[in-house]
Parts: sequence; structure tokens; C-alpha cells
Amino acid sequence: MLFLQGGATAQFAGVPLNLTTPDSVVDYVNTGAWSKKGIGEAKHYAKVNVAADAGEPYTSIPPVANWRLTPDATYLHYTPNETIGGVEFHFVPEVGETPLVADMSSTILSRPIDVSKFGVIYGGAQKNIGPAGLTLVIVRDDLLGRSRVATPAFMDFAAMTKDGSMLNTPPTFAWYMAGLVFQWLKRKGGLAAMGELNRAKADKLYAAIDGSSFYRNPVAKDARSWMNAPFTLANPDLDKTFLAEARTAGLVTLEGHRSVGGMRASFYNAMPMEGVDALVSFMKEFERRHG
Amino acid sequence: MLFLQGGATAQFAGVPLNLTTPDSVVDYVNTGAWSKKGIGEAKHYAKVNVAADAGEPYTSIPPVANWRLTPDATYLHYTPNETIGGVEFHFVPEVGETPLVADMSSTILSRPIDVSKFGVIYGGAQKNIGPAGLTLVIVRDDLLGRSRVATPAFMDFAAMTKDGSMLNTPPTFAWYMAGLVFQWLKRKGGLAAMGELNRAKADKLYAAIDGSSFYRNPVAKDARSWMNAPFTLANPDLDKTFLAEARTAGLVTLEGHRSVGGMRASFYNAMPMEGVDALVSFMKEFERRHG
Repeated sequence: MLFLQGGATAQFAGVPLNLTTPDSVVDYVNTGAWSKKGIGEAKHYAKVNVAADAGEPYTSIPPVANWRLTPDATYLHYTPNETIGGVEFHFVPEVGETPLVADMSSTILSRPIDVSKFGVIYGGAQKNIGPAGLTLVIVRDDLLGRSRVATPAFMDFAAMTKDGSMLNTPPTFAWYMAGLVFQWLKRKGGLAAMGELNRAKADKLYAAIDGSSFYRNPVAKDARSWMNAPFTLANPDLDKTFLAEARTAGLVTLEGHRSVGGMRASFYNAMPMEGVDALVSFMKEFERRHG
Repeated sequence: MLFLQGGATAQFAGVPLNLTTPDSVVDYVNTGAWSKKGIGEAKHYAKVNVAADAGEPYTSIPPVANWRLTPDATYLHYTPNETIGGVEFHFVPEVGETPLVADMSSTILSRPIDVSKFGVIYGGAQKNIGPAGLTLVIVRDDLLGRSRVATPAFMDFAAMTKDGSMLNTPPTFAWYMAGLVFQWLKRKGGLAAMGELNRAKADKLYAAIDGSSFYRNPVAKDARSWMNAPFTLANPDLDKTFLAEARTAGLVTLEGHRSVGGMRASFYNAMPMEGVDALVSFMKEFERRHG
């Protein structure tokens, strides 16, 4: 495991710089805004085949059986959780021998994962790990040592592995905070316990949304995120009132991403069940008064 | 001014990626370990001419009149302060029309600088700005927009300028801390006051070293750093005793860099005159007992 500087977007270039040559073919699955950014940047380094594209407005995951996989692709890249669309993989896709590369920024540590199924896992720290500015990268040993000469040294997986993530001065405070978060996770019962809690939090919020015609989440039920639930009001004229009253009730940052509008509840590991309970109560009360 | 993720070493690649093509000739001045690292990485991107090389053990600055400058070099890169050798430029070299690029990591904010003399100034935050993981970059407007397609987006000066350093999630905590440091600097009287204080701190320490045959600093007097003073004992067998007794006296991290040994006192902006006074007193007392 490496700690690198920069956010997950650093790895949009870092992954192809470390794993490909300009002639490599890499498969990418597009399930939302972050997938799309990764694809856009990978094109600067290798031949990108978009193996599957959920298409706007990104509310589902194309069935794996329909993915147009490249035989001998250098890797297949996907985004297990999309924060803007609120679309999450609740399974690890089986793609044969092709190394799986996953941008886990917004889902890592939300539940146990079988690391052995992946070639590269990377994730920005700022959701479930610690302060922004730190990226965690897990690379399978046999994928090390393939980087291009033009890879900035501080992004080179092999050089960073050799130097224990300290080829240069690491982001020491963020690293220290990450250590405290890892200890906190252990005290909470580890990733198994976090997974149960996150599932329960999500179930409760989506049940509240589905149980009312006042609120709506557009995502296919099997692909709904445990971390980010976008939702809309049947009457969008009430959006501003909803957000203002929520704020008064102490429920903040519920605005949807500026690119899609509406509302979004993010409930990363740091959000306790009490936070979801408070939101659900507020939503019921708001519907009673405005519905 | 940009805030970028990663330390100064990120810019060892970032500068040539943003300013050169593979055919560009770039001049570099080698005055120590950090210059050398920058040169090593620049060679991956462009044709590097080492215009001047102080040579091991790096104790002086080659006279500018002797630099072998390339006519029409894309830029000239130098390192105003070398933390390991303790060698600092107390002037800005005049190199005609060639844009000056300076790795100011360990000297930025130590005194006023005339920014208009530079094409690019960059520096890791962790000396005089704030926590590690943040780089400050100042780029002359006409040097923007020349980056290679293969520049990782989060390192692209023009893209970052356009998005106000927020193309991706910035290292928010480090950025916030940097803001507090800037306010503190203003309260202390700004860079003019810091420059006077830093000069006085350095004068006092070097006077103590030069005033004794027990201690020695090998750097040419006109190139001695205001930020890092390496020094040795006439009897190196006493090094361990010196460091141990210093620690007992509350004076810590006085070990020289592992690549050179001996002692090193770093006295960045955060070190008050009282810290230098305490070190000088300890040095005199240590010499009295062991000299």
C-alpha cells in the first residue's frame, strides 16, 4: 500500500503512466462523471476502449455480460461509486485475466473488499480516510516497474514502493490523520461492522424516499449508493425551501452537485445512524407541511 | 498564484511538462542535492544543459559570469537555497531574456523577493508556508498554455489557473493553514521584517561558528544560507555527545542530513531569535566542557 500526494484525479494520469505504453489498449466502464473524467485523461496516454457506457443521466450499471471487453486489455478501469449520480457497484465485476483497476475514492473502507481481485485500487483520502491531498494506492506486485520514463517520480508506483511512500516529503499531517481514522475504524468493529452500518443507513434513507411520492431517487435499486443518495422533490419549486429549512434544522450540505441540482445526502463512514434518522424525520415533517 | 497538490518534487516534472517540448533546451544550475534531483528528472522531458555546477561537496555558487548559458534556452532553473549543503543565493541571477525558474521551497517568504524577475517560482509548503502536501506555484502569464498533452491535468498550470487551483479537491487543511501563516507573517511585519530577523538569526549563528575553532561551517561566506546552517565539530568523535546533550537541553533535530552527517541547524521563519540564542549558548557551554 502506498500513500501518494494528490487526490484521486492524480491517478487518472498516474494509472496509465504506470501501466501502459502508448500502444496499450485499456478498457474503461463509464457509469458517471468520475468515470468520464478518468476516460478523458487516459486518452492522453493509451488507446481507450469504452467497454460499457451507462449514458446520461447515469442511473444504472450496464450488465457485465454486455460489456465489450478487449481481449488482452492492459487493464479494465471502473468507478465502484459515483458520487454525483449516486450509482454504486455492490459486486466486483468478473473480467477474466484482465487486471481490474478501481477508483475507490468514495467507497473505500465503506465495507470489506477482496483486495486480491484487483490489479490496482486507488482512492483520494477525503471521503473515508482523512484530509484531502493524500491518495491511497494498492498495486499488485507484478504490475510494478512498468512505468514510463515520463512518469513524474513522485507518481511512480515502483519508486514510491521502494521508498516506503517517502520518495519525497509526504503529506505528513494527512497521513497521521489517516492513521487515527484507521484506529477509529478498528474500534468501531472494522470494515465488517462499517459495512453493516452503511447498508442500514442506506436502507433507511432509500426506504423513506421510496415510501413517499414527494421524494424520488432515480437510480436502479440494485445500483444505489451507500455513500451518496441524490434525490429530488416532486415539486422542484420547493428545493430552495427544503434546503433552507434543512439548514435551520442543522442539516447542511444537502445541495445536489451543481451539475445536476436537486438534493444529495452523503453519508460516508463519519455520518452516524443518528444523522440519517434526523434527515428522515426532517423529510417526513417537511412533506407533512408542504406535501 | 496557484496552490497545487504534491511537494516541490512534483514540479521537477511539472515545470518541464508545462513549459517544454522534447526538443527544448533548458539550462540548470547545480548547487546541491535538490538542484541535482531537479536536473535528473528534467532529463526525462527535455535537453538539459548544466550551465554551472558547484560540484561536491557544494559549498559555493559558481560566479554567474562563468555560467555556460544556452542562447534561447526555454528557461534557466536554479535552487535559491539548498537545505543539505546550506548554500543560498542572496541575489537573483541576471540571465538576459531567458525566463528564470526557481525552486524556492526552502527560502520562500524568508525575505522580500521581486517576483517580476521570474518566469516560474515554485515551492513546497512545508518550510515557511504550512503543512507538507501543498505546492505554491507562481507563473508568468505568457508561460501559461504551453503544457504537453501528457501533463497530468492536476499538474497543468493553465488548467489549474482557470479553475482557481480547484480543478480537483485541493488539500483543504494545508491550504487553510497556509492562510493562517500568511496572516501571521503580516502581523509580524511582513517579509521585510522577516528578512531582517532571518539575517540577524543567521549572522548570530555563523558568528558563533566562525568565532571558534571548535565548530566549522564549510560554505563560502557570501553563500551561507539564512535557513539551514550545517556545521561540524573539529573532533567528529564528539558528534553523538553533542546531539545527545543538545537534546537534553531541549534542542532537537540538529542532526545533519543523513547524506552528509555532522550537524545542521534549520532556522526557518517559525524559529524565533530565542531559539538561535539558546543554540549559541549551548554551543559555547559544550565547547567549554569538551573543547
